[in-house]
Amino acid sequence: VNEVMILHEYTASGNCFKIRLTAALLGLPIERRQYDIMKGETRTAEFLDNINSNGRIPVLQVGDRFLPESNAACWYLAESSALIPADRFGRADMLRWMFFEQYNHEPNVATLRFWMGWVGEDNLSDAQRALVPVKQAAGHEALMIMNRQLADIALYAYTHVAEDSGLFALADYQAVQAWIQRVAALPGYVPLDS
Amino acid sequence: VNEVMILHEYTASGNCFKIRLTAALLGLPIERRQYDIMKGETRTAEFLDNINSNGRIPVLQVGDRFLPESNAACWYLAESSALIPADRFGRADMLRWMFFEQYNHEPNVATLRFWMGWVGEDNLSDAQRALVPVKQAAGHEALMIMNRQLADIALYAYTHVAEDSGLFALADYQAVQAWIQRVAALPGYVPLDS
Repeated sequence: VNEVMILHEYTASGNCFKIRLTAALLGLPIERRQYDIMKGETRTAEFLDNINSNGRIPVLQVGDRFLPESNAACWYLAESSALIPADRFGRADMLRWMFFEQYNHEPNVATLRFWMGWVGEDNLSDAQRALVPVKQAAGHEALMIMNRQLADIALYAYTHVAEDSGLFALADYQAVQAWIQRVAALPGYVPLDS
Repeated sequence: VNEVMILHEYTASGNCFKIRLTAALLGLPIERRQYDIMKGETRTAEFLDNINSNGRIPVLQVGDRFLPESNAACWYLAESSALIPADRFGRADMLRWMFFEQYNHEPNVATLRFWMGWVGEDNLSDAQRALVPVKQAAGHEALMIMNRQLADIALYAYTHVAEDSGLFALADYQAVQAWIQRVAALPGYVPLDS
């Protein structure tokens, strides 16, 4: 990657953290540009027209091209590095966990973290409030599956802060806890809040 | 791919169709094994232990290895073929749309198709019923984004049958309609119901 890379982000987002962590582990420099999602800064006409029509961060800018979706950006940075398995099945299996993360894990564990820690329980709509136990159960199911099998950076992002919502206890998932410690000990590791 | 491949599937599922369509466009033979999701056949102990701990189809079996997540299976089949862009940014951008599909499109457009056409509106739980308008709005938003930009097999699967739920009209999305016709005209194309 020879072009300048700019991460359009909100620091506390686990989806943004994934990209910073991937870049850090690979020693790749990225510039950072902050948007306050609580103030709707990713829903402005300018953002929708120029950065991401889906109105979401993170977006990895590579030269004058824009790449939304955190796991696609991680893939872009990591291609041909040791972070991606060298064999065909292994690569697809890595993608399998990244899709699992966006379908079964993030909409539950990350959304509950955001609702409880950012929006605030008192400010939830009735529809959101009704979904809290549904998402909590689905989040437990995702953590249970992880507890039995391998995971990766994409899953680390929101798993290691799953307790932020007050609705998950990582002590219930011993293998996940041990894996979190292994990830945090990797050379080049950076914490979320940096 | 020299090993025997078996698709563990439910024919009417768009996620399963993606894999069949990818294999058909590439001329790759796959065997098929059917599970009735309405009878819980993907939640048996045997399925959870041997096929997919996440209790879901599709799963692409390659020899004695199992690959869940439809888009990961499509990637596995298509790697190094003309279906995947030759340049690094293009590959990541393709993944971007696949992640968009699983996060913004499938949980809305596909879930509503399943709820209205399989479960039946009268059998929805109160929580599900409350989510119908939320998911309909989010599905419209995803189709609107597609209407302005390019898409792929992963998005085709549930988009071309979006009207099944009775909650989306594809005539509202002219560019998407034209693109559906182009995909259906590809050499080697196979319909969902086959």
